[in-house]
Amino acid sequence: MIPSFQLIKGGVTTPAGFKAAAHRAGIKADAPDMALLVSDVDAAVAGTFTTNAFRAPPVRLSAENLGTGSGRAVIINSGCANACTGEQGLAAAQCMLAETAAALGVPENQVFVCSTGEIGTQLPMDRVRAGIGELAAGLDPDGGDAAARAIMTTDAFDKQRAVRLSVDGREVTIGGMAKGAGMIHPNMATMIAVLTTDAAVNPAALQTCFSDAVERSFNRVTVDGDTSTNDTALIFAGGQAGNQPLSEAHADWEAFTHALHAVMLELALDMVRDGEGASRIVTIDVEGAASELDAARAAKAIGTSLLVKTAWAGALPIWGRVLAAIGTSGAAFDDEAVDLWYDDIQLVAGGVGVPGLDREAVRGVVLQDAFNLRVELNAGAAAYRMYASDCTEAYVKFNSEYLS
Amino acid sequence: MIPSFQLIKGGVTTPAGFKAAAHRAGIKADAPDMALLVSDVDAAVAGTFTTNAFRAPPVRLSAENLGTGSGRAVIINSGCANACTGEQGLAAAQCMLAETAAALGVPENQVFVCSTGEIGTQLPMDRVRAGIGELAAGLDPDGGDAAARAIMTTDAFDKQRAVRLSVDGREVTIGGMAKGAGMIHPNMATMIAVLTTDAAVNPAALQTCFSDAVERSFNRVTVDGDTSTNDTALIFAGGQAGNQPLSEAHADWEAFTHALHAVMLELALDMVRDGEGASRIVTIDVEGAASELDAARAAKAIGTSLLVKTAWAGALPIWGRVLAAIGTSGAAFDDEAVDLWYDDIQLVAGGVGVPGLDREAVRGVVLQDAFNLRVELNAGAAAYRMYASDCTEAYVKFNSEYLS
Repeated sequence: MIPSFQLIKGGVTTPAGFKAAAHRAGIKADAPDMALLVSDVDAAVAGTFTTNAFRAPPVRLSAENLGTGSGRAVIINSGCANACTGEQGLAAAQCMLAETAAALGVPENQVFVCSTGEIGTQLPMDRVRAGIGELAAGLDPDGGDAAARAIMTTDAFDKQRAVRLSVDGREVTIGGMAKGAGMIHPNMATMIAVLTTDAAVNPAALQTCFSDAVERSFNRVTVDGDTSTNDTALIFAGGQAGNQPLSEAHADWEAFTHALHAVMLELALDMVRDGEGASRIVTIDVEGAASELDAARAAKAIGTSLLVKTAWAGALPIWGRVLAAIGTSGAAFDDEAVDLWYDDIQLVAGGVGVPGLDREAVRGVVLQDAFNLRVELNAGAAAYRMYASDCTEAYVKFNSEYLS
Repeated sequence: MIPSFQLIKGGVTTPAGFKAAAHRAGIKADAPDMALLVSDVDAAVAGTFTTNAFRAPPVRLSAENLGTGSGRAVIINSGCANACTGEQGLAAAQCMLAETAAALGVPENQVFVCSTGEIGTQLPMDRVRAGIGELAAGLDPDGGDAAARAIMTTDAFDKQRAVRLSVDGREVTIGGMAKGAGMIHPNMATMIAVLTTDAAVNPAALQTCFSDAVERSFNRVTVDGDTSTNDTALIFAGGQAGNQPLSEAHADWEAFTHALHAVMLELALDMVRDGEGASRIVTIDVEGAASELDAARAAKAIGTSLLVKTAWAGALPIWGRVLAAIGTSGAAFDDEAVDLWYDDIQLVAGGVGVPGLDREAVRGVVLQDAFNLRVELNAGAAAYRMYASDCTEAYVKFNSEYLS
């Protein structure tokens, strides 16, 4: 059986019709801190943004421009989130849009802007303005790598993924880059993700499938339960592949949405793997719930419990903290009907510890880089999956020292 | 002006009419692990219990006996929570009640039972049964100290407080002991608190003022956001002081409720001060909220944010994480109207950082053992206060190694 898509090495400039550039403007002390991604043609654009009440100015402007359903470019800086910066911050974000539009010769409402880094400080606009000129002059069809590195903040490594599939018998590519390591939590974390594709996609259909893929990828990962002010995910679909525009009615729609979800899930998992000191990634499956909301509540309670996450960090062969987390989640279930597995080892049956549990075997499961935690609530047929990191001393040390 | 009450050194046997004992039964490896507290006479009893769906068997039985509104004794063990232990665990808790009642010659429904420690293991009932006999034989009017030490699990120090006041011109004493350090969070944490008083109190009024005092003390502290399976708070009012029974109509009712709240708040703060590696305690005041629920949501979001708590641990002079936490709390407010202070230093005005902030001065505030974080939402007149610990590397190390 031929897979309907194939993960490949690549990033935002792997699909045909996209150029990118990176620049070191001096916003951060010691690394590239600006990136520009441009589509050769007007692209269909979809996006999702943070739900935090403190929406940073760049998020507000990008959300506004998303109303057009199309776009040509996104300008990104790291090192300064331009959040909680008032009128001055809003003017700075507007300036970034205007300068980028002017440098590219495109309308302002076809440009998107993202900022990530320290909250509450103002952008050094002279450097940013000069940087935009450099970026526009340096656009490169192989610039995706450099762009992916320039958007990093606390990330230990750059996050790039791509996938290839066939639409109308033509080769279609989806590429993406993301940043984010801490402040990672459902409902968009301190993350920026930009996806590109050379597929032609109907704008409304693009928003539908992108929102759905965000919900099942970026919104399913948790590092520390904190949600930032700047989360933005965008996708540009340029159409260079020459396929019939994709929408729900297209024969290859399902293949496209599956491929899109796959590449976004890989980017999301990269963020958990990074996770500021995280040593392992746990896939949490809550099954047999009365509703998906109940399953989600239980999964999130497990994935955000500090006691559970420190137990994973220490590879402790214990399960009481997991049950205590489920018990406070608000999910409906019978406490004498809950089962729990770590990979293939059952720890709890009917709400009670399995007699003769092999603690060393459990420790072996937890010691892996990744394992599966499965809860069966025996209360219905709904399920929910999410991905969580553990919480190590290194995480605390890192976030006790990082000034943002 | 004479204060209406006075905090004094003391514990559960400081009020007249109570005896206690401690015993080392061998449930824990190396320390006393059983305690018994007995009232000389039938006492009015009030209590509150965990809201966790996994209610441990001792919690279920104690909640049932609370229905009588009166009681004579509470039997407590540490080292084993007797939670998630099924039918065998329920039988064990029933046995503890029955054996204690028999040893004291009182009805079973006048006895309460508490267990704290590792979840999912069974009590060694031969040792527990023998221990009950030893405890009953060793009851001592000065036994409060030993009892307070015997209920400790991960606690670094024992927690005992007492307060003295005047009711009907007679001297009344309220004393208490508590245990709890980690898994501490609103809605009763992994804590046991037992209060005693020689005041005569109407049982219904006692439950009302005790529930209210729990809400404003134990339910306002958070260490790690986890809520345990075994939380129990009880108060015994024996009446030896000879006052007219206290109720809402009594002239000294307010003095009594204030004194009760004061002694319980001190016990609650002792738990935060302990807090498994905590280095400081932060009083969080959210003011100017549209409703108390909004204020509580914002306060809890701040007090449970891992990024905020690690920033406190590192004495970081930053405020973006605090605003990000408020922004995801669900509280209603205008993001351009929020003010923030650390003690007397204003960090944020109108949702924007105060220009020229003296970061070293902020660091000096955070470096204290305790400081006040005040948020003004400028959205109404409601307020909420809670108390949170920071999150240190020591906390993570501790909970990565402790097997429960």
